[in-house]
Amino acid sequence: MNNDNNRDDLNNLAISEKAKPLLEAVIKHVRENVDPILEEYDRLGEGRADRFSYVPGQLELIEGAKAKAKAAGLWNFFLPNAETGEGLSNLDYAYIAFELGKNPLASQTLNCSAPDTGNMEVLERVGTPEQKEKWLKPLLAGEIRSCFAMTEPDVASSDARNIGTTAVLEGDEWVINGDKYYISGAGDPRCKIMICMVKTSPDAEAFRQQSQILVPMDTPGVQILGPMNVFGHDDAPHGHMHIKLDNVRVPKENILWGEGRGFEISQVRLGPGRIHHCMRSIGAAEKALDLTLERGISREAFGKRIIDLGKNMETVSRARIEIEAMRLMVLKAAKAMDVLGNKEARIWVSMAKAMVPEKCCKIIDEAIQIHGATGVSQWSPLTEMYMKQRTLRLADGPDEVHHNVVARAEVKRVENLG
Amino acid sequence: MNNDNNRDDLNNLAISEKAKPLLEAVIKHVRENVDPILEEYDRLGEGRADRFSYVPGQLELIEGAKAKAKAAGLWNFFLPNAETGEGLSNLDYAYIAFELGKNPLASQTLNCSAPDTGNMEVLERVGTPEQKEKWLKPLLAGEIRSCFAMTEPDVASSDARNIGTTAVLEGDEWVINGDKYYISGAGDPRCKIMICMVKTSPDAEAFRQQSQILVPMDTPGVQILGPMNVFGHDDAPHGHMHIKLDNVRVPKENILWGEGRGFEISQVRLGPGRIHHCMRSIGAAEKALDLTLERGISREAFGKRIIDLGKNMETVSRARIEIEAMRLMVLKAAKAMDVLGNKEARIWVSMAKAMVPEKCCKIIDEAIQIHGATGVSQWSPLTEMYMKQRTLRLADGPDEVHHNVVARAEVKRVENLG
Amino acid sequence: MNNDNNRDDLNNLAISEKAKPLLEAVIKHVRENVDPILEEYDRLGEGRADRFSYVPGQLELIEGAKAKAKAAGLWNFFLPNAETGEGLSNLDYAYIAFELGKNPLASQTLNCSAPDTGNMEVLERVGTPEQKEKWLKPLLAGEIRSCFAMTEPDVASSDARNIGTTAVLEGDEWVINGDKYYISGAGDPRCKIMICMVKTSPDAEAFRQQSQILVPMDTPGVQILGPMNVFGHDDAPHGHMHIKLDNVRVPKENILWGEGRGFEISQVRLGPGRIHHCMRSIGAAEKALDLTLERGISREAFGKRIIDLGKNMETVSRARIEIEAMRLMVLKAAKAMDVLGNKEARIWVSMAKAMVPEKCCKIIDEAIQIHGATGVSQWSPLTEMYMKQRTLRLADGPDEVHHNVVARAEVKRVENLG
Amino acid sequence: MNNDNNRDDLNNLAISEKAKPLLEAVIKHVRENVDPILEEYDRLGEGRADRFSYVPGQLELIEGAKAKAKAAGLWNFFLPNAETGEGLSNLDYAYIAFELGKNPLASQTLNCSAPDTGNMEVLERVGTPEQKEKWLKPLLAGEIRSCFAMTEPDVASSDARNIGTTAVLEGDEWVINGDKYYISGAGDPRCKIMICMVKTSPDAEAFRQQSQILVPMDTPGVQILGPMNVFGHDDAPHGHMHIKLDNVRVPKENILWGEGRGFEISQVRLGPGRIHHCMRSIGAAEKALDLTLERGISREAFGKRIIDLGKNMETVSRARIEIEAMRLMVLKAAKAMDVLGNKEARIWVSMAKAMVPEKCCKIIDEAIQIHGATGVSQWSPLTEMYMKQRTLRLADGPDEVHHNVVARAEVKRVENLG
Repeated sequence: MNNDNNRDDLNNLAISEKAKPLLEAVIKHVRENVDPILEEYDRLGEGRADRFSYVPGQLELIEGAKAKAKAAGLWNFFLPNAETGEGLSNLDYAYIAFELGKNPLASQTLNCSAPDTGNMEVLERVGTPEQKEKWLKPLLAGEIRSCFAMTEPDVASSDARNIGTTAVLEGDEWVINGDKYYISGAGDPRCKIMICMVKTSPDAEAFRQQSQILVPMDTPGVQILGPMNVFGHDDAPHGHMHIKLDNVRVPKENILWGEGRGFEISQVRLGPGRIHHCMRSIGAAEKALDLTLERGISREAFGKRIIDLGKNMETVSRARIEIEAMRLMVLKAAKAMDVLGNKEARIWVSMAKAMVPEKCCKIIDEAIQIHGATGVSQWSPLTEMYMKQRTLRLADGPDEVHHNVVARAEVKRVENLG
Repeated sequence: MNNDNNRDDLNNLAISEKAKPLLEAVIKHVRENVDPILEEYDRLGEGRADRFSYVPGQLELIEGAKAKAKAAGLWNFFLPNAETGEGLSNLDYAYIAFELGKNPLASQTLNCSAPDTGNMEVLERVGTPEQKEKWLKPLLAGEIRSCFAMTEPDVASSDARNIGTTAVLEGDEWVINGDKYYISGAGDPRCKIMICMVKTSPDAEAFRQQSQILVPMDTPGVQILGPMNVFGHDDAPHGHMHIKLDNVRVPKENILWGEGRGFEISQVRLGPGRIHHCMRSIGAAEKALDLTLERGISREAFGKRIIDLGKNMETVSRARIEIEAMRLMVLKAAKAMDVLGNKEARIWVSMAKAMVPEKCCKIIDEAIQIHGATGVSQWSPLTEMYMKQRTLRLADGPDEVHHNVVARAEVKRVENLG
Repeated sequence: MNNDNNRDDLNNLAISEKAKPLLEAVIKHVRENVDPILEEYDRLGEGRADRFSYVPGQLELIEGAKAKAKAAGLWNFFLPNAETGEGLSNLDYAYIAFELGKNPLASQTLNCSAPDTGNMEVLERVGTPEQKEKWLKPLLAGEIRSCFAMTEPDVASSDARNIGTTAVLEGDEWVINGDKYYISGAGDPRCKIMICMVKTSPDAEAFRQQSQILVPMDTPGVQILGPMNVFGHDDAPHGHMHIKLDNVRVPKENILWGEGRGFEISQVRLGPGRIHHCMRSIGAAEKALDLTLERGISREAFGKRIIDLGKNMETVSRARIEIEAMRLMVLKAAKAMDVLGNKEARIWVSMAKAMVPEKCCKIIDEAIQIHGATGVSQWSPLTEMYMKQRTLRLADGPDEVHHNVVARAEVKRVENLG
Repeated sequence: MNNDNNRDDLNNLAISEKAKPLLEAVIKHVRENVDPILEEYDRLGEGRADRFSYVPGQLELIEGAKAKAKAAGLWNFFLPNAETGEGLSNLDYAYIAFELGKNPLASQTLNCSAPDTGNMEVLERVGTPEQKEKWLKPLLAGEIRSCFAMTEPDVASSDARNIGTTAVLEGDEWVINGDKYYISGAGDPRCKIMICMVKTSPDAEAFRQQSQILVPMDTPGVQILGPMNVFGHDDAPHGHMHIKLDNVRVPKENILWGEGRGFEISQVRLGPGRIHHCMRSIGAAEKALDLTLERGISREAFGKRIIDLGKNMETVSRARIEIEAMRLMVLKAAKAMDVLGNKEARIWVSMAKAMVPEKCCKIIDEAIQIHGATGVSQWSPLTEMYMKQRTLRLADGPDEVHHNVVARAEVKRVENLG
């Protein structure tokens, strides 16, 4: 990537004129339509008897905010160069997603939340017209939701070759068997379709053995065993589900892009998914720093404002510096995706993914520390923010895998010089 | 402390001959009587409708293990030099508490769990014969439990002068009003007595304004508003409760050690409490490292055992080194308490308290990373362990307060040389 | 600075069309005219009997390369918006300075080396026509060199109010007395002029007491006591000199911009000086990473390439990520100077200055480690590079001062929200 | 090592009664006989024309202090269980070496300086009576000095199998050819004997190919090519020399312990050598912390003592905590050597060696930062201290090798449980 650094088309990181008013509109939307409902939404959720349902009123809150955003044209920004004409460049979207990261409900109200975004992108890029009509259309309209089933409990899924779930063609049907876990969003009653990574071709070369298949959630044999927790939380009703696929049968044409292209599709999907997470993480880090400052300014101990004690000011400065550095790295990765395409840009994406969640964890952790006991309590959003960022260090490729991508590119660069 | 370092009576950190068989017996007890009940205890707890109760069978499990320990003489080890003849030296207890830290139920089975240990120590050291008869005796017998109410939501409680809860003498009674939170153990139905830190003497000098008063939990006006969460968990049925004291009236003689001695009593209490936490943290870190190794050895990715990938071996080595260093520092602090007394040893205790939970968080966090998604799930004890250690960095004085104690002693040392 | 982040004029970090061919020309110049002379230049310097002189041939090498650069129009790029029409924008200069940072002689050949750049900028911005004619002109022509005397041995010079050197007006002359150290470049025989920070107005308010005065090096009373070392090196013949000013008399009109404006002038000077250092640091970090990779690829131990051992690949990735993040932060600070002016941009400059040298030290240190004993030897440039970056963490404001600038801006931002 | 932790014979880290008065005497000796000569010794050294000689008076200073120590019986403490009856236990010696680490000349005055200590230990353990008479006796008497030639410039010497220097038996003589560098002490005119690691048996199994041979420095063919620098310093007249062995012929009986036992001898030597370095490092860290405190207390900026600014107090606390932890780890490793023997104790030694120099570098670096520009100057010993500790992270096995030793032991421990 060293060689790219003087390319001027990669270094203009400014938002476009077209996107500026959209950014302003999103900021206003979040302030007026999302921030005010968050507390009630959470409160309602606490009374939930069936964990994976919505209590009366809760879904209305979120769908109401969605309707407002959709009406205002604040919708599906995540999808660049779509046939349907929707979406912004990755760079422009980054500015918007930074804002969305400050409120955990905001992305959903713009139909820009994971894992739907990745699923829609995959369908848009490699789906057949029939697949698009049946699944992409309602997803783009925000009428249904979806999930993506890759991770498996029994193997190190960071190595795609380890995938153990099998799909065997019997007549006109794929018969799928296996065990998937941490299937995010599969708990939501609105979730209707799963994209499932399977092994179809065990005798092919290592990265041509996998395929991705569309599995409607109501297909017989799709058993949700229960939620996987994250730091003890089930994240209901979204949920990170443990799913057993037991002789699940779907039509032959439910395969995406053809047999043996599962790994390739992952490459299509993972770049955007990863960078979207990182964009939102910047918003979370901004919020944590604001909370640090507000607490530090308003409380006193030992005769001083807490912010003026010990290392706290330096902690603030270091957080601010790292946030700005992360923001620029995410913008650069987004720009690289726009200019170079997702494949060529993947090292920039890995750099962002290896950098951002780890540093955000640190910034949020420091915010917790300055809050004292309240920082770990339900009176503060900080632990929820921490758990999300901490989990991101494992999801969509653990840090180690991304560092390896970056380092191998460096080694190759210098080998080529030699 | 520099000057203490050549003192030979501080540097013999070996367990005593007397304690050796006890240590062996404790290891055996945990293995045979506690490890086997943990899973069932937790499983029963999940079905709890009323969060702050015990479901049928649950209390029997823990009381059964207690009875076995008590019968075997494995009881109240935490209390050195007790009138009642119980207890080991702090140094000997450290070896035992390292083991107790590996299982979250183990301490309780030996009647060695917080916050009872601190409360018993305070009662033993400064209680009147009547106070001891009424409260210390059943606590030592393991018949009731207790809590300690210091932290308040509205002020930085790390500065004791900020205490806002008031106690005013009206006739023969103290009338107490205020708001306390994070009162650990107050949710347990067996909790019968609270030691409450209050401000009795607002016109006295800064550290003579506080007193500690015994408040039976069933006193009218003691309102448990609800549990404070830690990373979203209520830690039921133990609980970290939010308590309102609303015109709570207790007899004049419920004051401990006399008016204005509250801060002094804290000094009695806090040293042992802090070092006990650190002892158990060592056990937790050991367990996390074992889990790291077991996972790293048994899983493969990219054609290698996970332990052999990237920096994992160095992570293991650094964890081992830090664990050994922490163990020695905790042993030294315990020895200093035995030899110098709690007051003189307080800098050693602050060193351990500032060092241990922070490093344990890091070791557990690395264990999580090597476990992948399973590391943050309910299939692993790691996040629960992490949350406990993370909270310890705030409880009993946040890290910053302990670093300040250590640094001020250093400044003083060099000023005295000058 | 949070509020600036969506400003599109701050986020276009691309090099201008005009500067692109200059950047190419500089890269070619360094490769063809500077890289080839470095080894001989250093070798000649080793034989130096009088440490602060040039041996025959040495000065010719550097002046020869200077002449080539000047003839090619690669000259004085550092000075934006100069009356004389020279100089590039800070942003364009950054791209060039990244390259200059890879060879320790390169900057000087373009007349872009410290401390002359800062002195020229000050003279250009606040000098009188006479001052410019006498000193700026030969400096811009590369005929003489200069130094800047601020730091004093007896006080913490990071606080400008501590300045102890006095200047008293006697008739038409300033009489200067004091002790300055770490006066970089004062050892070079070509150094003819010093800008000296003095206290002229002890009764004025704190930041109006200081002035800056032009002191020709040959003025009686200017005594160079000897070189200050950096990690034991005298950096001859450039030198970081210890200078005594003993009743030094200069004409009244040698004052810059007027009495009491010394602190103000520092603000003019320090922004560019700091960011120029950071630009070159990026080049140094790039070079260190290249050396790491070359060593790691070419050596073997325990049956593997060193780069493939343990954490080395992750170290490479982290270095690459931090370099890219630093590069973007430096570009952003440079752009902010271009768009907002040096004063408004000072927080961006402080962010870069607090971030870059510290991280570069780490990257170079890791390069040393991978080189084994050779890494600390004269066979590698790494320790020299390390010492320069380490010293930068103290020069032009220690890290702590810059973190404080950043943090105070953050506190103010949030206070204004409240 | 986990299993060793409850062994009481490993955990008594107190100095023995016998050694206490010796420790007191050493402290007094350093204060009265070594501290006062350091400045003059260094000043004389600056005037050295021939770098690897002593100027008049310089050697007298150090030999004078040696004579006083020897007369007082403060001599050869480093050698436990010597036939000659000299030496203390490793544990007792640690307490003394902590003190020696505070003054760079102190160890030599007690005949306890590297690399002589390691060479004497090897001769004592595996030398023949003739070898002992000829070389050990004058070394123990402090009449001559010695060096140890292992590291080679062309290979990664951390892997002993890489040794390229060959020794071939021709008749009654070994003929040695090769290239060695960083041969510490070989510049000292008093250095008379080298122990040289060579490859004698290229066809044996990997760790039986090496031998160690005694090579008198005046043997024809021993060519000192020049000094290797450390951060640009030649460390004259001690020196870390680059040596070419060009058909060097020594008698057959100069081999130590027999052909193919070179690696084995390294094991004898390296444990003590490494732990001695670590002991002295503790003294250096203590001194750095004292300098930090003295500077921080005596200087002011922004209206406060520097020590009271920002994070400085926490930096002090963290340094103190790490110093105490390192001290205990070094004591434990020393005790393990006493109780378990050097071979069994090697994991404890690796833990100390991987831990101590790295942490000492950090503590000294922080001391530099608080000193400002003076910290990197010749007016402070800090950079010299830094360079020594930094080099230790590479010498006697780089950190990475020691971490690997520790981690492999951990893996083995858990594999054995499984």
